[in-house]
Formats: sequence, structure tokens, C-alpha cells
Amino acid sequence: MCQPELVSAIDSAPPVCVLGLGLIGGSLLRAAVRSGRQAWGYNRSSESADAARADGFDADTDLVSVLQRANESGAIIVIAVPMPAVDATLEAIAAHAPNNPITDVVSVKGEVKAAVERAGLSAKFVGGHPMTGTSASGWAVGDADLFVDAVWVVATDEGVDADVWSQVADLALDCGSVVVPAESLEHDRAVARISHLPHLLAETLAITGAAGGELALGLAAGSFRDGTRVAGSAPGLVRAMCEGNRDALLVALDEALDLLQGARTDLLDNGSTARLVDSGFAARGAYESHERWDIEDVQVGEPDWIERMRDAGRRGGVIRRSET
Amino acid sequence: MCQPELVSAIDSAPPVCVLGLGLIGGSLLRAAVRSGRQAWGYNRSSESADAARADGFDADTDLVSVLQRANESGAIIVIAVPMPAVDATLEAIAAHAPNNPITDVVSVKGEVKAAVERAGLSAKFVGGHPMTGTSASGWAVGDADLFVDAVWVVATDEGVDADVWSQVADLALDCGSVVVPAESLEHDRAVARISHLPHLLAETLAITGAAGGELALGLAAGSFRDGTRVAGSAPGLVRAMCEGNRDALLVALDEALDLLQGARTDLLDNGSTARLVDSGFAARGAYESHERWDIEDVQVGEPDWIERMRDAGRRGGVIRRSET
Repeated sequence: MCQPELVSAIDSAPPVCVLGLGLIGGSLLRAAVRSGRQAWGYNRSSESADAARADGFDADTDLVSVLQRANESGAIIVIAVPMPAVDATLEAIAAHAPNNPITDVVSVKGEVKAAVERAGLSAKFVGGHPMTGTSASGWAVGDADLFVDAVWVVATDEGVDADVWSQVADLALDCGSVVVPAESLEHDRAVARISHLPHLLAETLAITGAAGGELALGLAAGSFRDGTRVAGSAPGLVRAMCEGNRDALLVALDEALDLLQGARTDLLDNGSTARLVDSGFAARGAYESHERWDIEDVQVGEPDWIERMRDAGRRGGVIRRSET
Repeated sequence: MCQPELVSAIDSAPPVCVLGLGLIGGSLLRAAVRSGRQAWGYNRSSESADAARADGFDADTDLVSVLQRANESGAIIVIAVPMPAVDATLEAIAAHAPNNPITDVVSVKGEVKAAVERAGLSAKFVGGHPMTGTSASGWAVGDADLFVDAVWVVATDEGVDADVWSQVADLALDCGSVVVPAESLEHDRAVARISHLPHLLAETLAITGAAGGELALGLAAGSFRDGTRVAGSAPGLVRAMCEGNRDALLVALDEALDLLQGARTDLLDNGSTARLVDSGFAARGAYESHERWDIEDVQVGEPDWIERMRDAGRRGGVIRRSET
């Protein structure tokens, strides 16, 4: 939901140009419009663009004209295409809207940042990552509420432009999210643990369960259903995020393998699972008792603001209200 | 919900004596009473027995008198105590109600069956396992609806008494469940895959996520929440079921370790997760498309009924209506 103090700031909020109208981009276009912003979108396939238009949104398949309009209006450009399409999208931005503020909503931040550097667009780029989604994809499943109460990471990297950073944070807040400041690589290491590893474990559990045949699948109840839910996500999307975050995912995967190997040894040698189960219970407790707190003592643009924001984010700090 | 054709048979349904009034036993006492059966329970701690009585149920802490009543009325005895208390419970049954039909609702069937054999009570014992539960425990969290639409495995072992088997199946049906016939060891192998392995993976994911600190826990969304849900279960219960099913769990765990090790190699060497992700997606699809079908051509007690029931269970067959 749009917060009241934001509504009053809408007149000065820049328009939003969304490139890619899948689940995330399509939801973002809806949420930006609902917050009172002027917003339009581009999609490569006419199917999604047509569907968006049929739902009353401003959508086109002509990337050049969409970017020219962004260039003329000073819109913030949101890259919401799949990772394999990011380079070509950045090339088009460099050609037609090189001075606009740019953000993205693609999962892995280090990979996008490197692509932005290759395209020479770093000066006005601040990456983003709304931690939300469903296992479905495409315009039709989008939802303006998708971002409400979700965490939206705003990349807080060395040398980032303070004004663009605030614009990206404001967009996230306008969509109903809570902003977490984090450096790109730290974000990638964190999501390897809490988003990409869960997918690998879910796939593994699904395969091992199905290997038990119809009897096992017929007995499967809540623990299997929940533990395999994200194995139902489109393989292409899962692969893109896991493979794009290879180094950080390997670290998390090795930790998981060590834990499971240790549990295997304990169970085989002593018939015990105490070490894993007790630690896992404590860890789930830490997750359940995790509490967000408001970052209130850091002003964007002040000296050391980048380091101070990152430090606050590391300690669980969030931004819930626009500074502007 | 109690099915109409069962209500009409209630007068002839035997009373139910539930030993142990935790989540499962307490829910079973409620469900049995709701189905119209005469039912009473025993709990070692007076706290749960008092709470059950305060809720209007017939509950006691005197095991001997509870069992004498079962002996006099021909009640079916349901063992619903934690695994470590099973041996002592069986000793008491052997002393005070040695001729009653007996079942259990403890997770691992091979372990309970061995204990029943040690106690000399095999003749009228048929194991059971309702595939339901929550991460909470105790009388207070029990619910007569806990078994509705759940799968309830009825152990279909060589030499089992057909009349007791039918009584156990009828109790499951009266509680609103669907009956799956399965041999004890096959049940244990299946639940290692779809119930015990999910717990080990959930514990592992919780630990690896929490190792990422407040930033990681703050970014955690649906995939982490669902993937770690059962790590919130009481460690004692998780350990009891995992350790009680050691051999079968080691087989499932080794399969999972092989899959993850293979994924690690693929990711490290080729930057790919295709093998794991594509298979996992297919496996989750197999789970989602799994369909129960009704076993209608096997009569309990007819020649070869045990082997035919087991075979039907292996192929996804279930019983939804009482034969009686």
C-alpha cells in the first residue's frame, strides 16, 4: 500500500520506465501506477505487451521509442528482463537514454553491476532486488501487491550516486516495500544462503522423494510439500539465478554439504542426529526472532553515508519512509 | 468429517482407548469422540490429563485402570506415546489388556513392530501412522480435524490379523483419513524420503542461512521460510523419528548427498545446475500430479489379501470407505 506521506510527494516523483513485463516487471508497472506515478513499460514479446495494454497499462514492444520517452522525461529506468537479455538492454539504454537514472530488479547483483560497467553506465546506476516472487511467471500473474511488505535491497556500492540511490529507494517505498541497504557482493552472498541454496535443496528433496515411487509420493505431507515447493519454479529462472551467483552459491553449498556429511557420520556411528537438529532448531529460532529496526541516523549523501548504510543493513536495519 | 455411511455403523464400532494425549493422541481422542465412538485416554502427566478433562474428555493418569477398562470393553488400544515410552507401555498392556486389538500412531513402524514382538503382543497388533501433524505439541494444540483428508498408513505385514486390520482401518476412516496399506519396512523407507529427509534438509538450510547473519535473515523470503519450516519442530520429536529410522534414512540421505555433490561438481566445472534443476522440476511435477485411486477389488481376509493390499498401496491405491 502506498503510504500517506508518499502520496503527497508523488508530484515530484520521476516517471518510471519498466523494461520487461514478466512477473516482477509487470507487477512493478502496476504498483508504480497505483502509487500515482506516471509509468510505462516495454516487452520484447507482443503477447505480454498486448496483455498489459488490454489491462489498461501503457506498454510497447518498441524499445527505442520507449527509451526515447524515458530520455525526454528523465524517467527512472528499471531493468526487469531475464539476465541473458541484460547486456542487449544496457546497450540500448546507452544508445537512447544514457543519462537517465537506472536500476534493476534482477536477482544477482554482482553480475548486473559488471554488465553495467561494461556498458559504461555505472555513473547513474544503482542496483536493486525486491525479495519477492512466486513460482509462476509472465504478465498475467503480476500483482501490484507483490512488493507490499517485501524487503527490497538497494545496492549500496562504493561511489554510488546519492541522488539515484534515493530515487531507487523511493521507488521501492512507493511500491510498499521496506528498503535494505547492502553492498552488491554482500547481497549476493546473503541470497546464496537464503534464496539460491533453498532451491538446490528443494530440487534434491523432490528427486529423492519421487525416487520412492507412488507409495512415497502418496504419503508425502506438509514437510515434503513445503520443502519442495520452489522446485516447481521454472527451471530457466532457477538456473539463471543459481548459475549467475556461482561463487557465493558454492560457498553456501559447501557449508550445507559439510553439515549433511556430519549428520550422516553421526547417524551412522552413534545413531544420533542431535548436533544437526539442535543447531537447526536454534537457527530457525534466530530467523523467527529476527526483527527489523529503522535506520534513522544516516542521511543519504552525508560523509561516509555509504559505509554507514551498509553497516546498518548488515545489522538488520531497514528504511521504511522516504526522506524526501 | 465423519462420513455418513460410517455414522450408521457406529453402534458396532469398538470403543477406543488412547494412550498418550499429545498432539496426535489428543487429536485422536477428540476425533474418535466426534465420530460417535466411546473413547477415553491416558496421559502420564496430570497436566495434559487435567486439560483433557477440562475440555470435557474422559482422561486419566492411572494406566492400570485405563487398561482394565479397555480389557473389559474390548476397546481398541492406540499407543500414542513417544517412542522411548513404547516398551513400558507395551509391558503394561501385556499385563492388563493382553487380548485387546492394538495399534499405534508412532512414526517409525519397524521399531514399534520389534517392540511389540518383544512384548509378545504381535497376534492382535496392527501398526498405523497418520501422516499429519504440526510443529507444535501437547494436548492444547490437538484438533479433531487433524486427520481429515490425511493419509493414514495401516501396516500390512505378513501374518497380520484381518479383523484387527479392519478395526484399525475403520478407526482411521472414522477420523476422516484415507487409508494406505503398506508393509512396515516399506512404509519406513518411504517416510525416510518424504518426512525424515525433509527435516534434515530443513535443519541444514536453517543453519546455513543463519550463518549469513542479520543481513541474510532479513532478506529471507518464501523459499527460506518454507524450506526451514519444520526446523521449528521440537528437536526431541525430530530426533526420535530420524534416529528410529536410521537405516532407511541413511539410504535417502546418501541419495541426497550424491545429488548435491553432483550439482556442486556441475556448478564448479561447467557453471551449470541444469541436471539437478531439470530433474527436480520433473520430480515436483510427479508429486503434484500424483493421484490417489480407490482399492476396490481386495477384500480383507480373502486369500492373498495382504500381498494384494500392499501391491495396491505401492501403486498409489487408497481406501476411502469402510467395508463394514
